[in-house]
Amino acid sequence: MERIVYVNGEYVNESDAKISIFDRGFLMADGVYEVTTVLDGKLIDFDGHAKRLTRSLNELDMKPACTDEELLEIHRELVKRNNVEEGMVYLQVTRGAADRDFAYPKDAKPSLVLFTQDKPGLANSPAAQIGMKVISIDDIRWGRRDIKTVQLLYPSMGKMMAKAAGCDDAWMVEDGSVTEGTSNNAYIVKDGVIITRHLGNEILSGITRAAVLRFAKEAQMKVEERSFTISEAQDADEAFVTSASTFVMPVVEIDGTAVGTGNVGPVASRLREIYLDEMRKAAI
Amino acid sequence: MERIVYVNGEYVNESDAKISIFDRGFLMADGVYEVTTVLDGKLIDFDGHAKRLTRSLNELDMKPACTDEELLEIHRELVKRNNVEEGMVYLQVTRGAADRDFAYPKDAKPSLVLFTQDKPGLANSPAAQIGMKVISIDDIRWGRRDIKTVQLLYPSMGKMMAKAAGCDDAWMVEDGSVTEGTSNNAYIVKDGVIITRHLGNEILSGITRAAVLRFAKEAQMKVEERSFTISEAQDADEAFVTSASTFVMPVVEIDGTAVGTGNVGPVASRLREIYLDEMRKAAI
Repeated sequence: MERIVYVNGEYVNESDAKISIFDRGFLMADGVYEVTTVLDGKLIDFDGHAKRLTRSLNELDMKPACTDEELLEIHRELVKRNNVEEGMVYLQVTRGAADRDFAYPKDAKPSLVLFTQDKPGLANSPAAQIGMKVISIDDIRWGRRDIKTVQLLYPSMGKMMAKAAGCDDAWMVEDGSVTEGTSNNAYIVKDGVIITRHLGNEILSGITRAAVLRFAKEAQMKVEERSFTISEAQDADEAFVTSASTFVMPVVEIDGTAVGTGNVGPVASRLREIYLDEMRKAAI
Repeated sequence: MERIVYVNGEYVNESDAKISIFDRGFLMADGVYEVTTVLDGKLIDFDGHAKRLTRSLNELDMKPACTDEELLEIHRELVKRNNVEEGMVYLQVTRGAADRDFAYPKDAKPSLVLFTQDKPGLANSPAAQIGMKVISIDDIRWGRRDIKTVQLLYPSMGKMMAKAAGCDDAWMVEDGSVTEGTSNNAYIVKDGVIITRHLGNEILSGITRAAVLRFAKEAQMKVEERSFTISEAQDADEAFVTSASTFVMPVVEIDGTAVGTGNVGPVASRLREIYLDEMRKAAI
């Protein structure tokens, strides 16, 4: 059965889901996105994603395509029409279609596209018991990674470099410090302290990151928001990543070196459990 | 009258020209492009653009959408159907449509999109008599600018910053040196020497740049390929940019400071003339 997806006001079959070739999302990567996870058929942290979307749009002088209430309605309608129990809702807003020009068009209507991805078993992923292996690669992305744009070619290349090395993901390194994974925030745990890079233009302000750090603090865990190096990470007791669709995912090997025991550690496991419990309760 | 554009094997009206929302060009900026200029209804330096396209595709492990001969045929067909005398043919290849994933899809078919832009009077543009004013901005683009990808959000933002400052374009600066303009290569002229940044990952290897440097050398002008700073540029006798669609375009002001006399200089004028003469002769 075909997915029903949303394109500029209409619910259509995925094979009919098309946009103009003049859309600036297609021609110039002039668009932003969000991915909201679905558990038990409900949306996880929709408000967090809606807020970040608004910020991304503002940073790029881009108009919203609709109100947050309308967005929520579309999310729910897609979850319902596609019977998603566990999975994701992907959302993209672009500056719209106009004849190609580097200057922004004066009166283009923003484009809005949403689709679901069904991922049964997402919360009970066996990967969370095994942990991920990562390689490090140079972070050569643009300087405004705090804006969630569709300029994802390099993260995509990083993912392929990781696969070619027999690993699951890549951690990006800039000026000697880890910035983030290809589509997740990076953490290490040393002597009971959770360490993750401070916010700035260099990384995305993860919605899952914010929730996990809040839960960690509520559970009396110590948190330090600062840069760390690959060798510090290799020398840590644990490592993990967070993202909307992987929640908290342990990292057990970095550039061929086992982290800690080389097995999934207690802090990552505990945080994953708390995160899933709390977010399921708050899901809408 | 609507333009006829080319989308994946078909010639269609521009209002019917659509691609899947799952196209990786739309979702992940996973695409490359070329812009070939048309003068007298003929293509300028088609071979140069075709060669660079092949290089861009190779660098990204992307498959070509068709042969160079087929590409030429499509270019010519679009020029004919749209009666383009002066203008451009835009071409974009993406990795194709597939369900969204950072990893490259195994069997996606590359997408191929082409359209024309009519620009009557392009070669006799009054702007070439007046010259452009530019501002300098930080170059925060990704590190592989030698690959002509559609990740054009920052150049687009740069164009808007220039407009907001009452100028025509922005020169990007990295580590103290000018890299390039938002969609052109940058040059200065000092004591009869034409200075432009050396090739590397930091700038696009301009097709027009290669031709202009060749003509300059043939005309016994001295050329130095090396980095230069904004203050060196402000202190130069002349400045200019080159690109497929602006040919050789003088720059008469940088960050509010007049370059040389503040008028269009003889080297830029002469190079523009030679370039247009020679390229018209070689057009196909």
